[in-house]
Formats: sequence, structure tokens, C-alpha cells
Amino acid sequence: MFALASISRLGRASASARARASAALSIRGFALTAEKYPSVKRGDYAKLTDEDLGKFHSILNPNQIITDAADLAAFNQDWMKKYAGQSQLVLKPKTTQQVSQILKYCNERKLAVVPQGGNTGLVGGSVPVFDEIVISMAGMNQIRSFDENSGTLKVDAGVILENADNYLAERGYIFPLDLGAKGSCFVGGNVATNAGGLRLLRFGSLHGSVLGLEVVLADGTIVDSMHSLRKDNTGFDLKQLFIGSEGTLGIITGVSILCPARPKAVNIAFLGLESYEHVIQCFKEARSDLGEILSAFEFMDRDSQLVASKFLKTTHPLCQEDEVAEASVPEYPFYVLLETSGSNKDHDDEKLEKFLEKVMENEVVVDGTVSQDEAQLKTLWTWREGIAEASQQFGGVYKYDVSLPLDSLYKLVEETQERLKSFSLASTEDESKPVYEAIGYGHIGDGNLHLNVAVREYNKEVEKALEPFVYEFIEKHNGSISAEHGLGFQKKNYIGYSKSEVEIKMMKELKNHYDPNGILNPYKYI
Amino acid sequence: MFALASISRLGRASASARARASAALSIRGFALTAEKYPSVKRGDYAKLTDEDLGKFHSILNPNQIITDAADLAAFNQDWMKKYAGQSQLVLKPKTTQQVSQILKYCNERKLAVVPQGGNTGLVGGSVPVFDEIVISMAGMNQIRSFDENSGTLKVDAGVILENADNYLAERGYIFPLDLGAKGSCFVGGNVATNAGGLRLLRFGSLHGSVLGLEVVLADGTIVDSMHSLRKDNTGFDLKQLFIGSEGTLGIITGVSILCPARPKAVNIAFLGLESYEHVIQCFKEARSDLGEILSAFEFMDRDSQLVASKFLKTTHPLCQEDEVAEASVPEYPFYVLLETSGSNKDHDDEKLEKFLEKVMENEVVVDGTVSQDEAQLKTLWTWREGIAEASQQFGGVYKYDVSLPLDSLYKLVEETQERLKSFSLASTEDESKPVYEAIGYGHIGDGNLHLNVAVREYNKEVEKALEPFVYEFIEKHNGSISAEHGLGFQKKNYIGYSKSEVEIKMMKELKNHYDPNGILNPYKYI
Repeated sequence: MFALASISRLGRASASARARASAALSIRGFALTAEKYPSVKRGDYAKLTDEDLGKFHSILNPNQIITDAADLAAFNQDWMKKYAGQSQLVLKPKTTQQVSQILKYCNERKLAVVPQGGNTGLVGGSVPVFDEIVISMAGMNQIRSFDENSGTLKVDAGVILENADNYLAERGYIFPLDLGAKGSCFVGGNVATNAGGLRLLRFGSLHGSVLGLEVVLADGTIVDSMHSLRKDNTGFDLKQLFIGSEGTLGIITGVSILCPARPKAVNIAFLGLESYEHVIQCFKEARSDLGEILSAFEFMDRDSQLVASKFLKTTHPLCQEDEVAEASVPEYPFYVLLETSGSNKDHDDEKLEKFLEKVMENEVVVDGTVSQDEAQLKTLWTWREGIAEASQQFGGVYKYDVSLPLDSLYKLVEETQERLKSFSLASTEDESKPVYEAIGYGHIGDGNLHLNVAVREYNKEVEKALEPFVYEFIEKHNGSISAEHGLGFQKKNYIGYSKSEVEIKMMKELKNHYDPNGILNPYKYI
Repeated sequence: MFALASISRLGRASASARARASAALSIRGFALTAEKYPSVKRGDYAKLTDEDLGKFHSILNPNQIITDAADLAAFNQDWMKKYAGQSQLVLKPKTTQQVSQILKYCNERKLAVVPQGGNTGLVGGSVPVFDEIVISMAGMNQIRSFDENSGTLKVDAGVILENADNYLAERGYIFPLDLGAKGSCFVGGNVATNAGGLRLLRFGSLHGSVLGLEVVLADGTIVDSMHSLRKDNTGFDLKQLFIGSEGTLGIITGVSILCPARPKAVNIAFLGLESYEHVIQCFKEARSDLGEILSAFEFMDRDSQLVASKFLKTTHPLCQEDEVAEASVPEYPFYVLLETSGSNKDHDDEKLEKFLEKVMENEVVVDGTVSQDEAQLKTLWTWREGIAEASQQFGGVYKYDVSLPLDSLYKLVEETQERLKSFSLASTEDESKPVYEAIGYGHIGDGNLHLNVAVREYNKEVEKALEPFVYEFIEKHNGSISAEHGLGFQKKNYIGYSKSEVEIKMMKELKNHYDPNGILNPYKYI
């Protein structure tokens, strides 16, 4: 009998471990992107002059303009310390009008810009490659309005996702998107990269939930499409073009989004399984038996839990009491974190209980624990959400956030591990090897795999072993080389693995149409 | 006590009444669109020659080419008999290649075309205005594939919505769209008009559920974007442009769509309410208490039920046994049809029962009946879905399918009724008046009102009383002049009531970019 009351084994994972992230992040030096990728040449853009600076001072207050080298650093480098630009200027507009004036001027002058949100992307999309002017959206951080009848939220693009969600929580609503970086990422950046996150399974994609956008085009034109209607069929749905355009067609300054009622009951089950096939089987049964309350179905392989364990330095939720030891993880090769969110606690409990009894009985699941208490929920989620930071602890990480059909999804992890080992590049023991380990986890419910190759150093030999191997595998299995985060700088040259020539040609035409001078986020995307 | 067992008052509405629809539809003659709207001039397109016909005979078999006047009629006129074109040629391609060859030739020759699906639209979008060649998608009606792991369905554009849903039902899935015309409309037409239908509340918009499209551009280019991944962030989401483009940017030939698991339990409650404010209150409580299982929330005013009653010629579901008489409707001014769909019947029953007890107790709802039996469900739905056809029974109908914020939604119906009466245009008794009655119903859950003005004849005076009055009201209250069906011919000149000049300019640029010769569905949209 697997009852919801058995929550005893939880609550030991230390949340404070997350604070050690930044220390781990800065243990290595990093090279300029332009030096690491010498084949990428600076475009024929104007160079910043004193006159330009004077112009920007006429638009913005002094505290909205950053030119000090020390202050610029954080805007020039990405979260993974993999990409580093050389921008000499960061502008922080506070209004849509200011964004418009800045872009109009940059377009006339042919000054390249890179729009930047919370800078939490993983493909180098939000940092400069050369000397592009950074337009940080951090100054546009106001919630504009909320309609409690319809659940329509209107915000500035620079509102932090977690702030938006906290605001909604007080009103009984929830932001239809959640992801690990919620404490730093901006809503505008989420939309610009078409973020999917942890609860896409339940709340769907931003293409469905975004009702309107405010966008500034390259020439400074303000497109006010901050509509709030759930149904509006009057002409082409222009906003869709900007969702996932990564700042290459315009800068998103405002977002209108439909928010669902906040679930009244949330349950989590953390399960141990004997094989990847059991993970798929478990997902199918969950989708059938938990139906409309299933809000997340995440899988993690054992290696990902070992890496997390080394970082969190706490005992794994499925370890027995008598196994308590630092960084221990049980022997199950796969783990699942499953979440339900519903409007009636008793019903949800009963559905989950019946489901767990069934999958334990037919041996799809061999071990597990459940939790409904807020603090315990967070702790369990740490073993899934903490993997991203934990993968960095040895020095760096090559991250592939990709889509694959379920039957070939985990095979990519296995083949990558074999490949790295056959090239003698990987070892968890031997510190002379550049790669620590390749690990796999992700959103099974969306066919979304995170393949993280945890490395001791960024290294050309490793990169060559991984690319285009990973992309070729994905193309062969009809996947997408980017399930999240977009193309950015990292995947610019690989779009052909997921899109046809006709599609790429159409995209290039659109880019040329909206940004003929190519000032918006150059060297990236397509 | 309002228990789920009290289903006794149902089952008397005759489904056979629907068969009388076509009779009602053809009681009036109709004029050519070109004659009714003399200000619309034929564009500078080529006229069909014998040589053109010869070319089409080289692409298609003889049975795919219609030139006989009697056979052409059905393709030239719309469902409401409001618009009538003069096309001399209908082509019925069976493959994407054939669509491509046809369009390439028409584009070179500057022959205008109108793509046609099930021809169930209400804005004259799917019929010719002058002599445009009709490209009927009826010949492309194959289900291409279905993946039972992910729920991804791939179909030809000409598959009838109900056929697709029946196919899915056998496999435990459901099409994420349902609407009154499901027995005739095509999936491709649904996507081209961004149909929302009855269950948008639960399954969201097509912008979220369509995963990929196959589209043929004006110049014959085949865009194969039949992707099947739930998450794919590699470049602009091109397919979105074609969702809701009403055949003006390209012809949709294939659709890939994500289908949810079919709910195991469906309940319906049919309720009587004392005011529109009570309808809104009831919706708020339903969204909170029924949460994730609420799949439809439809409202109908009493006039709409009277009109339906005259057509269905059966007793209203909320009539008492002793009130049985032909075409009787109780005195409640408003009615709500509420549907739940979930994975656990007991839980759904309990949620619905508790909800109904609450809203009866606090007098938000004053009467009601519930049903779970398939036949009874259908009968109850007749009183909502049957209104569209019933509105036609007196001769014709001016239909406005619009979005409005909830607080002003019903006011449009009241003001329209007052206006028609003040102009002495309307009477249910006096048959010399052109208007029978203006009625209101629709999807409260989506802010979507159907304002139907049932008329004895289409009449310029009535049209002048209604337009631009209706559009001005919608603009003033920040609504959309088209929640469904798009712009078509009817609303082409009114887009400015819902979109800004900047947006309209951007749309025109896109149209010009993809269809520089303007051959695709001219005289419509923008």
C-alpha cells in the first residue's frame, strides 16, 4: 500500500546549497566569443562615437546609461560563462518611447544592438558577440494591469517571472509558465525565446496563452498589439512572429497574457524506476489516470542525480533512513518527478493514490515518496531543478535542450556517453579528462530532453565530439535541435538540422523585411 | 437538493428537426454579391480561357474539374445564402503537388482563386465574389498518420472535422476543437479561420495546438512544416502566420495537431438564471469550483431559446411536465449550458453536484437539469447548437460573432434590440417588418458573443441600422469585430475597428510579400 501519508523520508535536502551556485560558476576564466570563434567576423556596423553617447544622454537619464568597464562585465557575459562580448555601452530604457527613440537612432546610424532580459539563456542569445550596444530591459519592470474577471495580465517586458507569479498568487491566479530561472528571467525574454518550462504539459505553449504584445521594430515603430481578448480573428496574428524571435525582429516591451486560476491542491510524487521503458509506461498511465490534473512529468537518470547529490550535499529523497550519508543516491537507473495540480484536494489525492498503487502493483514503479507540504514540494523539486546548476560544478557544461520522439529520446544520452568514452574524453574519476559525465533528464511530457555534458573545461576536442554528432542524431530521429532557449549564437549554423531550405529562406526574408540593416541581435538565429 | 440523479425532464427534443434546416435555407432567392455591392470592382485579373482549361486538364483528371453550371452553384454560394459568386470553374486537387501546379500556373497567368473548405463560414470568405477559380479541398480527405504515444494527428486539409474526431475517439483521443458545423467543415478551413468553437475554454486555441502545417504559397512553393514536436524553437514560427489567414497567404494542404486524451466522463448542466449578472457570477463560481474539468460554459438569452423552440418544435429542457406544449420556453431571461469533461466520473459528479448545490443555494441559479447519458447530452446541446440554424428559419440572419469584455458583452444585444425597435424595423408578430428579433448567446468562457439578427429578408435599411453601429460599439468597448470566422468579405472594411493603422500596414506588407499578384482570395480580409 502506497498511501499519501508516507511522507516521512523527506525534508533533508538543504535549500542553502543553491547559494553555492555562484561560487561554482566563477571558478574558471573565460575567453571572448570573438576569440573563440575567429571565423565569425564583425559586421559592417557603425562604431560608437561620443556623438552617439550624447544622443543617448538626450534620451535617457545618466543612471540609465552604463559605460563603466566593471559594470559592463555582467552584461557582456552569459550565465554559463561560455560566451563573452565586448560591448562598451548598456542602455536601460524605462519606457516604450525610449526604446523606440533608441532603436530609431541606432537604425539610422547602423549601430548594432542586443536586447537583454534576465540573461539566463543557454545559447548565447542575450549577450553581445562584438561591440553591440546592450539594451537591457531591466528598467521596464512594472505590472501594467490585471483583470480579475478574465485573468488577463499586462506587464512590462522586464518584469521578473517570479514577481509576476507572486503578484498573481495573491489574486488566486498563476502564471502559465514556470522554469528554474524564474527568480531572474524576464517575462519579455520568456516570450522572445518562447520558453516552455515545467508546466507546458498543463498550461500549453506561449503561442496559445499570450494574448497581445507591444513591440518596437528596428526603425523605432511602436507596434501596440496589447490586446486582451481570448478570441480575435481580425487579420494575421502578428504577435506570433515575435514569440520565439529572440530579439531579431523587434524588441518586446510589453506582454498581455491569459493566466489560469491557481490550483488549490498540489501533490508531488518522486519515483524510482528500473528502466527508461518503465518511464514511458509510467507516463502513459499517468496521462490516462491523472488526466487533467497532471501538471508535470519529469524524468532524471541516475547520473543526473549523482551530479545533483554532489552539489546539494544532501541525502536523496529515495534513500532509506539507514543509508544516510553525504551524496548517496539509490541504485535505480531512472527517477520520475510527477506533479498534480487541481481544484479539489480530496479528489487529487485519491486519483494519485490509485495511480501509484497501480504502477507499484504492476511493477512499472519500484519505489517512491509523495509530498503535499509546500516546503517538501520545494525540496523534491530541488532534485530536478538543481541539476542545471549542479552540472556546472566541475567547471562548465555543454547543454543541449532538444526535442525527440519518446522512443529515441534517451538513446541520445546513451550514445553520447559511449561516444565520449570511446574517445577517452570522459571520466568521473580521472580529473585529467575534460568531461566529467553526460547526463540526461527533462520533460517527458513534452518530448523534451536536457542532455548536459558536465565538463572540467570548455574544450575544442569535446565540442568536436559533440557537434554535429548530437544534431545529426536529432535530425535522423526527426527531433528539434532546440526545444527551449532558441538558436542564439550556439545553434545559428545548425538550424538546417531542424528546418527545411524553404523554411529557412522564408525566415531570412522576414528578417530582411523587418530589419533591413540587420541591427537587431546580429551573428545569431538565422 | 439538486442531485445528479434528477435527469427526468430530458430527452424530448427531436433531433430530426435539424433535417429541416436545408428546407428553411432555400426559401428565399439571393442576389449576386457583385450586384449587391456595386462599389466592389473586379480586379485586374486574367479571364479564364480554353487554354487555361486545357492546362488544368493536364494537371487533374476530368472528375476533378467542374464546369457545369448546375454543379457550380453549390460552390458559388455560401451557407447563409448571403453571398453569391460567378465562378465558372471548380478544381478539386487530390494532392499537394496538384495544388502547387495549379497555383503556380494561376500566379503566372494572374488568375484569381478562392480556396474553399467545407464552405460553412459566415463572412463570405469561402465563396467567389466575381469569377475567381474555386479550389475545393474536398478531394484531399485522407488521415495521414496518428502517433498514439504523443497524440499527434496528421491529416489532409480536406478531412471533415467530425471524421477526424471519430477516428480519434476510437483511439482514446479527442480533436481539440468542436463546433456546430463539425459534420461539414474541414480541418484545413478550421485552421485557416482559426476556429475556436465550443471547447476553447478547455483545450485552448489552435495557435497552441497546431504543431505543423503544409502550405502551398501563391507561386506554387510547397512549405512542408508538418512538424510533430510539442517544443521546437528553431526560428520564426512560420505556421502561425497561416493560422487565421483565411487563404490569403497560401493554401493549407496538411495539418499536424496535438490531440488530448479523450475525457472519460462528460456531464452537462442546463440552467435557468434571473439576469445576465447572474450568468457572470455563475461563470466565476464554475471556473473556481469546477476548475480543470470545466470544458464549456455557454449562455443563451430567452429570445434565442424562443427562436430555437420554434425551429426544434419540442419542449424546452426546463419546462415542467405539466407545461408540455409545442414551442414553450420558461420565463427565465437567461440560460446556461455548462459542460464538464474529466478522467474520473465519481469525482466529476461530486464536483458538479457541490457546485450546483452552492449556486442554487445562493440563488445565482434558479432552475436546472443535468445529464450524463450520451443521447441526453446531445439533446441538451441542441438547444445551444441549434440556435444558428433556427435563426435562419424566418428567411435569413445577420450574424455577428464578436468578442467583448464580459461586463459589456450582453449590452450589445440590448442596444441592438432597442435600436431596431426605435427604427420600427423589428417585430416577432408583424410580418411586414424585415427583422424578426435580435438574439444573443455564445461562449461566456471566451468572452465570445453571437449576436444573431433573425430577418425575414436581407435588407439595406436593416444593414444600415446594424453597421457600423455594431462595430462602433465593439471598438468603444475594446472588443473584436470577429471572434470567429475571420473577416472574409463581410468585415474586410471594418478591420480598423479592431486593429491599429500600424498593424494593418504590417498585414498589408505581409500580404504583398507572399502574394504580390494578389491572386489568393481577393476582395476580402484586408
